[in-house]
Amino acid sequence: MYGAGDVRVIDVPDPVIQQPTDAVVRVVSSCICGSDLHPYHNKPHTPAGTTMGHEFVGVVEDIGSEVTTLRRGDFVIAPFAWSDGTCDFCREELQTSCRHGGFWNANGVGGCQAEAVRVPLADGTLVKVPGGEDSGLVPALLTLSDVYGTGYHAALKGGVSAKTSVTVIGDGAVGLLAVLSARQLGAERIILMGRHKDRTDLGVEFGATEVVAERGAEGIAKVRELTGGDGTHVVLEAVGHMPAYEQAVGVVRPGGVISRVGVPQYVEAPVGFASLFLPNITLTGGPAPARAYIERLLPGVLDGKVAPGKVFDRTVDFDGIPEGYRAMDNREALKVLIQP
Amino acid sequence: MYGAGDVRVIDVPDPVIQQPTDAVVRVVSSCICGSDLHPYHNKPHTPAGTTMGHEFVGVVEDIGSEVTTLRRGDFVIAPFAWSDGTCDFCREELQTSCRHGGFWNANGVGGCQAEAVRVPLADGTLVKVPGGEDSGLVPALLTLSDVYGTGYHAALKGGVSAKTSVTVIGDGAVGLLAVLSARQLGAERIILMGRHKDRTDLGVEFGATEVVAERGAEGIAKVRELTGGDGTHVVLEAVGHMPAYEQAVGVVRPGGVISRVGVPQYVEAPVGFASLFLPNITLTGGPAPARAYIERLLPGVLDGKVAPGKVFDRTVDFDGIPEGYRAMDNREALKVLIQP
Repeated sequence: MYGAGDVRVIDVPDPVIQQPTDAVVRVVSSCICGSDLHPYHNKPHTPAGTTMGHEFVGVVEDIGSEVTTLRRGDFVIAPFAWSDGTCDFCREELQTSCRHGGFWNANGVGGCQAEAVRVPLADGTLVKVPGGEDSGLVPALLTLSDVYGTGYHAALKGGVSAKTSVTVIGDGAVGLLAVLSARQLGAERIILMGRHKDRTDLGVEFGATEVVAERGAEGIAKVRELTGGDGTHVVLEAVGHMPAYEQAVGVVRPGGVISRVGVPQYVEAPVGFASLFLPNITLTGGPAPARAYIERLLPGVLDGKVAPGKVFDRTVDFDGIPEGYRAMDNREALKVLIQP
Repeated sequence: MYGAGDVRVIDVPDPVIQQPTDAVVRVVSSCICGSDLHPYHNKPHTPAGTTMGHEFVGVVEDIGSEVTTLRRGDFVIAPFAWSDGTCDFCREELQTSCRHGGFWNANGVGGCQAEAVRVPLADGTLVKVPGGEDSGLVPALLTLSDVYGTGYHAALKGGVSAKTSVTVIGDGAVGLLAVLSARQLGAERIILMGRHKDRTDLGVEFGATEVVAERGAEGIAKVRELTGGDGTHVVLEAVGHMPAYEQAVGVVRPGGVISRVGVPQYVEAPVGFASLFLPNITLTGGPAPARAYIERLLPGVLDGKVAPGKVFDRTVDFDGIPEGYRAMDNREALKVLIQP
């Protein structure tokens, strides 16, 4: 990406092992993330550009001399942050704060909207999974890289259970998988706020019990009407823009929790006496430790109990990537899978 | 209080039963709260003024016809919010959001920096306690009205346990009782940020293991130095001003919790990517459901295991109330007990 709206497919040198803890993985499938649309809107133009992509499944092609848990040919899922798997934060399942980890597309680590990628700290980062590239489960497995784990993180940090009513704000892939995760954690009432009918239909399939298409004050009034004036115990905010935050504050029940997984596009927000303090609202969330959730969510994916792969509604090859960004940005596509 | 800095002791009509659920309580002891200092700084002058006080223990003098759990002569503690005790929020132990409750000094309900006070919803609000006005425990019992319950709320919402390190910001009565509460919940490491040595000495007596007198960037650096650069799992913010919030963000460990009980004197605050989101920080807290904690904390007070009454370091009679405000505001007194 060379700047807002400017995505190009170019040839770069093949990635190679640089550290003994690296692996090189051939990308079987990657995808475009809702969070990739933020730089697609506002990234300043630079001559060097930046690599893109942080969600992939693939096959291990090469390993460094210190990699012990992986072999060439292993089929693996990579979470959207790489991590050592051994530090205190990793042991606490907060791999996004790993003491030696980092994020793709930064500090000399490339992106996975590519044919291959160098994976640092491969033992800690990659999860070997059964099956392979022809299993038909690739889209579902790919959601464990980010969007499913992120929706699950929202629900888990929000304290969703059979006892809690839930509002999900946002009908992107993360919002829809937050619905699926809330259902999985036992929520019986899930109100989905979104205005794209094809998406909210999938949300209903994933477990949403009500859909509110209105936004802002009107949307807040609608959710309050549906909940006897109170709002819901938990609000999962899967957008990141200020109006979504304000909506969350507007529909959360006193004593409740706002769990954010949409990357905030604001620095400050209302958290004072009236908004959060007086009603004892908890604000939580952050980037999901997707690595922590892969093993936990994998069985449901493998046995077909959940079908998170349904968030992918378009597939492109490399040449189609710029068009994939355009289609996601225009809300023509929900989530675009990249098949090299 | 007729405006900032203008506290007067005047004669008003004796409170009487207005609703069949009311009680009238003769105040045995009340006190001045750190939160009373906010209007003492910034309340606009009004000819009518407002009554003050929301913490008291006393003796039931009269009850309405529907009051069933109290009798004349009962010795009672009142929490700083009145509540019906029966609605869903009360049953969930969030009495500050009671569907029929409210706060003192508003909506026709007076304050308790007075000889007597009308208590709405007396069955739900008041807690009858053993002993009486001569037991020597009055100061300790009085802390259950607000400051002890508020410190406990901070620690409880912060998730304090034997596994968590804790920073307490603020050496007022609430901060010191947050230290005591954190210790009670098992915390073994409690860093108290405060710059009044006589207060932090009491904090050490209550369980603080380290004291940081520095504030702002210097204070943050000091706490980080003490914690290997990481900050603590939990931060209990017992001040309410923006610098205290910024300090909290500065000393909380990734994945940790900031629990606020100081009434926020700001509307917006940093909660964006760098401050709270990337490190997965949770922001929680609010006004304590003190009513919920009275029974829970009472045994420790009655058997002398804890001595929260030590936060009172000055006693005044009615004529001394204006001077009591002045002394607390100037930090000459930690917390002023009022003995009618």
